[in-house]
Amino acid sequence: MLDIVLLGCGGTVPLKNRWLTACYLRCNGRAVLIDCGEGTQIAVKEAGVSLFAIDTICLTHYHADHVSGLPGLLLSMGNEGRIAPLAIYGPRGLQRIIEGLRVIAPELPFSLELHEFTQQQENFIAGDLHFTAFGVQHTLPCYGYRVHLPRAGKFDPGRARENNIPLVVWSKLQKGSAVEWEGTTYYPRQVMGEPRKGISMVYCTDTRPTASLETAAQSVDLLICEGMYGDDEKQDKALETLHMTFSEAAVLAKNARVKALWLTHYSPSLPDPESFLPAAQNLFFNTQCGCDGKRTTLQFED
Amino acid sequence: MLDIVLLGCGGTVPLKNRWLTACYLRCNGRAVLIDCGEGTQIAVKEAGVSLFAIDTICLTHYHADHVSGLPGLLLSMGNEGRIAPLAIYGPRGLQRIIEGLRVIAPELPFSLELHEFTQQQENFIAGDLHFTAFGVQHTLPCYGYRVHLPRAGKFDPGRARENNIPLVVWSKLQKGSAVEWEGTTYYPRQVMGEPRKGISMVYCTDTRPTASLETAAQSVDLLICEGMYGDDEKQDKALETLHMTFSEAAVLAKNARVKALWLTHYSPSLPDPESFLPAAQNLFFNTQCGCDGKRTTLQFED
Repeated sequence: MLDIVLLGCGGTVPLKNRWLTACYLRCNGRAVLIDCGEGTQIAVKEAGVSLFAIDTICLTHYHADHVSGLPGLLLSMGNEGRIAPLAIYGPRGLQRIIEGLRVIAPELPFSLELHEFTQQQENFIAGDLHFTAFGVQHTLPCYGYRVHLPRAGKFDPGRARENNIPLVVWSKLQKGSAVEWEGTTYYPRQVMGEPRKGISMVYCTDTRPTASLETAAQSVDLLICEGMYGDDEKQDKALETLHMTFSEAAVLAKNARVKALWLTHYSPSLPDPESFLPAAQNLFFNTQCGCDGKRTTLQFED
Repeated sequence: MLDIVLLGCGGTVPLKNRWLTACYLRCNGRAVLIDCGEGTQIAVKEAGVSLFAIDTICLTHYHADHVSGLPGLLLSMGNEGRIAPLAIYGPRGLQRIIEGLRVIAPELPFSLELHEFTQQQENFIAGDLHFTAFGVQHTLPCYGYRVHLPRAGKFDPGRARENNIPLVVWSKLQKGSAVEWEGTTYYPRQVMGEPRKGISMVYCTDTRPTASLETAAQSVDLLICEGMYGDDEKQDKALETLHMTFSEAAVLAKNARVKALWLTHYSPSLPDPESFLPAAQNLFFNTQCGCDGKRTTLQFED
């Protein structure tokens, strides 16, 4: 299963009751943080999730509201005793951005492993989660993230018998490890059925609606998508600033046949996102307004 | 008069209900900000003071908790329409720090005027306020700030008559401007008495007690001083980290004969500073615990 916590839902500037947009993903005890604006380390505490569990940080782009909290967060990780390496993924320029920000965090008791995207689409694995970063359309290079938690097939005793697998190694194979027994090596694929449907979600901000986003979001369990403007009358502003309206996000969610849409990254000029929710729900029924600390746990089916 | 607002009072990391230590000084409509850790731009809003009025930022040193909020604050100033130059003062390394942090704030609609200290003591003027930056003792170069608002002498009609100053120019001279009248230039000093006692305060963190601080704080109206640790049993920790206990700050305030002491820059391990206040007040009676948003207005005497 995959725990998802929306740490903040604000764009541009942190407000008193709205942290900047960031997302915390937890799977099997380890965590991934997507984006880290000013105050994200406080939002992590407020959400009651662990800073220490974060092994990977994914950055969408390098506007300050998505990355300015990084030096403080890294220092706090160090203060909490982290010594394990931390992986950071992001668009080209990552090395330069991290070097710049580390002017105020020069000494950390752990190393950073920087992974700078060079392609429009890149795949990587963090813990049990399979990520696809995909390029979107903003005022500077920006990526969305598709996150997939795969699920192995069911154990198939019929296949195990057909393949003459000794009963004594069944349970180990079922847990996913190869086993050697009396001079022969046995593999999980010899006893397992076809992989089953896993869990998938997409996190995407800041962008215009793009084909890359619609493709990545195809049939996901949850799409967390920017909705900078609630009012359709701000459509011109969305075009100008390369953001989206609620309606655009809802139409995209519908076209991508996602199960649920959470809106986030609200403009500071949008004090009450809920007031524009009914209109978005008319376009895509399972639209919800994100808010600080909003969380869900995505479970495997059946 | 001088308005003083303690925007935050936390050291090391911002907490849910405690912003990082920063101070806002307002005099005759213009403002100076001292230090700018993560979240200071939110603390400015919460305190209900103007971001737009800030013409000068003074940095004590470059630990992240005193400077990590700078990129976001600068961008917000730009978003609010600032075009006037902004002065920033700080220890050596200022240029490098600002360049590093501006990797996420490369474009601002106003210029920065950077003033990097080269001496242990430096004087400068911001609006009507006269500053003295003085070196203190921390784990890296660090300065405290003495702030002085001078006060002109009283208008002395006796002197004006002795100096044969025409009655018609008296009021302009009284306001501080030189005046030309019938071919002769008259100066305020010809009609004014000796300058009167002004207003003075010192802001100082992070440091051990130093002679420079005690000298700068001599007889000031208000000393805002770090008190990282409340408990005297943390004395060894204060020595190790080059910070102060409440008791050390109180003794220093007494020796410097200040009128009032506000403690600030509390360790995150100090949830209830007030519980250690009585002991500090035993050493210096007018000791107060700083808290987020604590404010005062220092007035000229009589």
